[in-house]
Order: sequence, then C-alpha cells, then structure tokens
Amino acid sequence: MTQNFRVAIAGLGTVGGGVVSLLKDNADLIAARAGRRIEITHISARDKKKKRGFDMSRFQWVDNPEDLAAADIHAVIELMGGAEGAPRMLVKKSLENKKHVVTANKALLAHHGFELARLAEKNNVSLMYEAAVAGCVPVVKVLREGLAANRFTGLYGILNGTCNYILTQMRETGRSFADILKEAQEKGYAEADPSFDVDGIDTAHKLCILTALAFGVKPEIRHMTTTGISHLTATDIHFAGELDYKIKLLGIARNDQGRITQSVEPCLIPASSSLGGIEDVYNALFIEGSHVETPLLSGRGAGAGPTASAVVADLIDIIRGHRMPVFGIPAAQLQDAKIMDLGDVQSRFYLRLTVLDKAGVLADVSVILRDLAISIESLIQHGRDPDQPVDAVITTHTAKYKDVTEACARIQKLGCTIQKPCLMRIESGL
Amino acid sequence: MTQNFRVAIAGLGTVGGGVVSLLKDNADLIAARAGRRIEITHISARDKKKKRGFDMSRFQWVDNPEDLAAADIHAVIELMGGAEGAPRMLVKKSLENKKHVVTANKALLAHHGFELARLAEKNNVSLMYEAAVAGCVPVVKVLREGLAANRFTGLYGILNGTCNYILTQMRETGRSFADILKEAQEKGYAEADPSFDVDGIDTAHKLCILTALAFGVKPEIRHMTTTGISHLTATDIHFAGELDYKIKLLGIARNDQGRITQSVEPCLIPASSSLGGIEDVYNALFIEGSHVETPLLSGRGAGAGPTASAVVADLIDIIRGHRMPVFGIPAAQLQDAKIMDLGDVQSRFYLRLTVLDKAGVLADVSVILRDLAISIESLIQHGRDPDQPVDAVITTHTAKYKDVTEACARIQKLGCTIQKPCLMRIESGL
Repeated sequence: MTQNFRVAIAGLGTVGGGVVSLLKDNADLIAARAGRRIEITHISARDKKKKRGFDMSRFQWVDNPEDLAAADIHAVIELMGGAEGAPRMLVKKSLENKKHVVTANKALLAHHGFELARLAEKNNVSLMYEAAVAGCVPVVKVLREGLAANRFTGLYGILNGTCNYILTQMRETGRSFADILKEAQEKGYAEADPSFDVDGIDTAHKLCILTALAFGVKPEIRHMTTTGISHLTATDIHFAGELDYKIKLLGIARNDQGRITQSVEPCLIPASSSLGGIEDVYNALFIEGSHVETPLLSGRGAGAGPTASAVVADLIDIIRGHRMPVFGIPAAQLQDAKIMDLGDVQSRFYLRLTVLDKAGVLADVSVILRDLAISIESLIQHGRDPDQPVDAVITTHTAKYKDVTEACARIQKLGCTIQKPCLMRIESGL
Repeated sequence: MTQNFRVAIAGLGTVGGGVVSLLKDNADLIAARAGRRIEITHISARDKKKKRGFDMSRFQWVDNPEDLAAADIHAVIELMGGAEGAPRMLVKKSLENKKHVVTANKALLAHHGFELARLAEKNNVSLMYEAAVAGCVPVVKVLREGLAANRFTGLYGILNGTCNYILTQMRETGRSFADILKEAQEKGYAEADPSFDVDGIDTAHKLCILTALAFGVKPEIRHMTTTGISHLTATDIHFAGELDYKIKLLGIARNDQGRITQSVEPCLIPASSSLGGIEDVYNALFIEGSHVETPLLSGRGAGAGPTASAVVADLIDIIRGHRMPVFGIPAAQLQDAKIMDLGDVQSRFYLRLTVLDKAGVLADVSVILRDLAISIESLIQHGRDPDQPVDAVITTHTAKYKDVTEACARIQKLGCTIQKPCLMRIESGL
C-alpha cells in the first residue's frame, strides 16, 4: 500500500479536535475513498497541557506552529484563525516549502488570499479552504467545480449561524436583540465578544472569498460594505412579519456586466422564499448562474463535525491529486474588481422612523421623499398614546440607495426623529 | 497554449443542443477555468437533416455513433439515453479506447454501472455522470467529493421534476392526476408516454446511482422497490393537507448498519419541512451524513441549461486532471448490497380506504389492525351522502411495512372496499 499521507494540525480547539476525531472514526472509509491513509503526525496549539479528550502522545508536539512548515509532512491544516501573525506566516512558509495547506481561516483569505493563491500556484501545491465558508455544504467546491461552466451574476448567502439564530429567536419570541444575544452567549451559541458575528464581519470575510471565486476577481475585503444586526429592534421584526417578510443578514455579491458590488446587510426577504425558510443556526447560499437558474445549498453552518468534514474532504481532494487554481482561474488572471458604488444600486427599501408624535411629521417626510423622487409603496403606523414616540414604516418602490440614504439624513435633520432611521433593502427575488 | 480538448457528442436533442450552446456562450470563461479550450469536433445523432439552430458544418458528422469511440478525440459525450444498444456499446468501446466519457444516461448506469466503472478504472479514464441526476445541483460531486469524509446513513430525494410538478399542481388546484398530467403533456412538461416519469422509473435509476455512491455498493436496479404516483387521488392530496403534510414522490435509500434499503414511493412529509418546500419542477436531495447532519441541495431538475452545465463541469474536471473512482471507491471494492427486506422497514403510515358505507366496516378494519398489532394514531372521515362510498383515512403509529401491507390485503378481502387501499409512508424526520 502507498505510504500514509502525513499531516500536521495547528490549532486544537473545537474544529481541530473534530478533525482528530473524524480521521479516527471514519479512517477506513476515508482511506478507501482517498486511496491512502491519512496520518496526523505533528500538532501545535496554544496550551500543551489542556485536556483534549484524545491521546496526545501519538502526535509530535511542536511549540511554535510556524515550525510545522518544515516538518516531514505532506500537508498542514491551519485552524488557528486570524488574518495576521502566526497563521499567516505558517501558511506562507508551508506553501513556500511545497506543503499543501488546508485552512478554515476566512479572515486570512479575505485579507491575503491573492498573495497566498499566487504562492500556492507558483509552488504547485494546493491551498484549500472549504471549511472557511458554510462547513456543512461544500459551497466552494460547487462554485469552483460543480457549476464551473456558468457565468455567475449573483450570490445571496446566509453565512453566519449566530446572526441567523438571533434573528430567528427575535421573530419567534418578540424579544429584543440584547435579550436574545445574552441568552445565546449563555448557551454558547455566541462568543463573549460577539462583534465579529453580529457586526457582519464574519459574513463579510466569507462573502469576500465567494465573490473572488464566482467572479474571477482578487479577494478585497476593503470593497465590502458591512452592516450588522445590533440596531434592529423587535419592532422591525414585527413590521417585517406584518409585510410577509423575514429579516435575514445577507451577504450579497452581484456582477452587473463586470461591475461588482459586495455588501453584508440585514434585508427583508419574502417569508415564504427559499432563503426565508433557512432558520436558526443554518446557513445557505443562493446562486444565480447563467445556465442553472438558482440552485440553493443549505445546512448547519459551523460546529466541530461539519467543519472537520470540510477539512478532511479537502485532504481527500489533495490525495486524489486534484489540483486547480485557488480561486477557480489562475491567480495571475484574477482581475481587480471594478466596484460599483453601492449608492447606485437600485432596490426597494424598508424605512422605519421613530418619530415624535407631532402634527405634520409625516407630511414633512413625504415631501423629502418626493423631492428625491422616491415613490412610497406602503406606509404603516399603528395607534399609540398621545405624546409618545411612534414607529412608522415606509416601504418604497425601486429607488437608488444613495437617494434613500440622503432621505434618511434629511429626515434626521427635521429634528422629530428620536433615533436614527432604520433602512433596509427589500430583496424580493429570492 | 495547450492544444484544444477535443470532444464528440452523440445525441443532439435538447441537452445536446444545450451543450453546443453553452460551450459557445461561455467559451472564454470555461477555457480560463479549465486551462484549455474545449472543441466539439464530431457529432452523431438520429437525423442528420433536422434543423438544430446551429451551424452543423463546423463538426464532422458520423452516421454510426459507435464510430465516435475510434475518433481522434479526448472525450465522448453520450446523450442518447437508454440502457442497451448503441449508447451502451459507445460508452463501452470509448472506455476501451481510453477515451473519457461524460454521460447523462441514468438508465445505463443503473443497469451497467458496475461493469462500466471497472472498465473505466482499468483503462485509467474517467466515466462522469453529474448530468444523470438533478442537473442544476452537483449532487454526484457533493457525495463523491465534498462530503467524502462522511459515513452516509440516508438519502431522501425529490428527483423527478415531472412528478413534483404534477403533485404540486394537484395540491394547488384540487384537480385529478389525469387532468394535470394531460395539461403537463400539452405544455411539454411531461412526455407523450409519461410512464417512465410517473411510474417512478426515472427516480429509481437516479436513486440507484446515488445509493452506490453513498454506500459503496454496486448499483443494482433490481433491488429497488418502485411505486409511482398515478394511483393518487385528489382526496389523498386533500387529506394529506388536512394532516399538515404534503405528498412527494421520494427516492429513499438507507443504510442501517450495513443493511440497505432503496425504494421510490410517494410519501407524506411535513408541509413545513425543507423537502416539503420543494415545489413544481424543482429537485432536491436531503443527505444524512455522520458529520454534517442534514445538508440539502435544491434546484431545477432538468432542461437544456442545467443538464448542459453538468456535462461541461464534468469536462472541466477531466481537463483539470481530476481522477477518482467512478462510484467513490475503486470498483473492485464495491460490495454487493446486503438488502434489507422493505417489509421489515418501520415507519408511520397513511392508509386511505374507500369503503361502502355499511355499519360496522370501520369496526372490522380496526380489528384487522389490532390483530396485526398496528396502533392507530388518527382516523379521519368526513360526512357523506348515505349509501355513497366514503373515504376514510387512518394514520398509524410506527409499524412494520409488511404488517401494514398484510392489513391492506385483509381489508380488501372484507369486500367492503371499492378500490385498492392507498398506503403511504409518513416520513416526519425531513
């Protein structure tokens, strides 16, 4: 039999432990499918003494993860996370040393994907990252291989399980963002510092990778417009429901005849749509391709099992000898994205105003919208106590983002709103 | 630049024409992704004179498709369809001549997949068939590669667009199977001879391929139990709705500790489940994997675009040099499936009886069920005119298939049913 395929793992948290377990649990099956046994030979993590539930003595411990790049191995699995420092150096050195790299590190790829792709291709080794996006469903493989005959025009993803869980719970219980977040933290569904998730940064990193893959452009996180979900109120969720929509944090990438937009933002989508049915910690990607219309992939987003499954699938690909450009076309051919200003994007919009209940406020708002040629589709306002602030929701017909943003600024200047207007796109075509 | 990758196409119907168009429309993009241009050099079809909407003079016409196996090409695309005769000989000879083969022919693979897989692997060429199942979503690739680290326990597929369209329309309009089928035929959604679709044969072929891939067994269509949808009545659809279910024609493959079942049958599934949301001509596959829980892939099932997309993706894989065993593990290691008798499968059941309205009928039925230890969960019967036949629907708690089948036989013998009882599994876990 062929000699074992030797790998090193850097980072032994939930996912790292999951990879160790999976390679043990399904060892024979994986060997049959890959044609070769996978053997973990070296490991490195922050704390050597931590209890990890498996026998560490089988592996060679390495204090400095960067040293793994020089070990006698075929591939490095990088599970440390973070765009800079040790993980970046480890991946870089490993590729230079002609080791294949499998990583779950979306931040690293969103920030340095182009440079690393060039390095991998120059050294004729693979840089694989299925685990970086939507662990449970192989969206990277589907875009890069399964749908490779298509010209892509749009991607719409629910890519962060924590946000989707919070929004689902807010809708189902009517409770506030802060309340649900606190509960999610207690249950371990959200991090102590939740900003990476709830501010949309995690989704932005993932979308940045998918944009590069789908449109053949260099991944460029600085071109991303990112809005999180922490400003959403129970009232927004309620109004959305009244309009037969659900609010989802979407990563949206579009290619309109070579002009690209990428943004992360909470949007209203039809409650009965396919993406509208994706609840709790589930992730999904809705793809617009020239010849396949709109396939949808969905599954649990993260967790030890799905992420380990993605890591090991990448290893199997490498062992089978599958090689292809990191972002689908050779790195040298990746274009600088021609970015279309998000302000020029046309959409329908949802606008919630919390206003003092003074005569004429809505008349003033209407005039502002009229002056910017924004046409109102519907207006909802419920009864309230006199002299109390009141929420009014306006939905618009198709308008330009910059005009609606300008309208919000002018409305704030009226001095009758008691908080910043809440503006969201309505995406009906999912 | 590398020389062109030369292909021949056998069969120029909807899909063949779609492949010609796609390779033209996205030629540059496909070349960038594959690293090489794809050139159609030879074609063969039944009728040379037929108008096809593209310039045939660019290709070399071959009268006998089997001759393509000897042409100066790298790969053959077989789109003739059918398990025997010319397509089978063409694929066989092409593999023997060390040509890669891409096919959309599910019947061929369901009947001769094992023999052809051995041949492909012996000759070190690829036999690819993404287009044979659910064109729009690469389910073959996802099972064989993307989720290759998982032990699979179950597959649940809506794999035939025609059946799903008919069932969706029956539910939405309340009209009969025959009515909707006739309309579907007029619209071109169903064939003049619809039996291949509505009797479940097409679904069976596709499921047979997926079973082999997921469980590492030889594809064996004779192990399939197949029930179609033509016996379903508007009443069944209505009762299912009343119980909050939808009826879907499912292909179900399960591996219970090495004992395999595969069946195609209309089932009741929760209306609000993920598969319950797959309507009209859409296809979907729900996968149970050891480490990914339950990913779902969905998209339009067939049509020129999606099927051509799958064919060309297979070509791109071949050009990129990706090689792997046809059914995920080497053909020599594929097992003969240990088949578990469907009669031993446990499930909840739906049983519709159309009975003469005589006193004591339901008492007799209850006794039969009690004698077979089948526990009734609910019974629905609506008011009716005296002396008219009446539909009664029983749902059971978990019972063995063979016991419920035996109950149906005994009920028929009572002489009070005016048609064969309609028996369906209730699959709640989707």
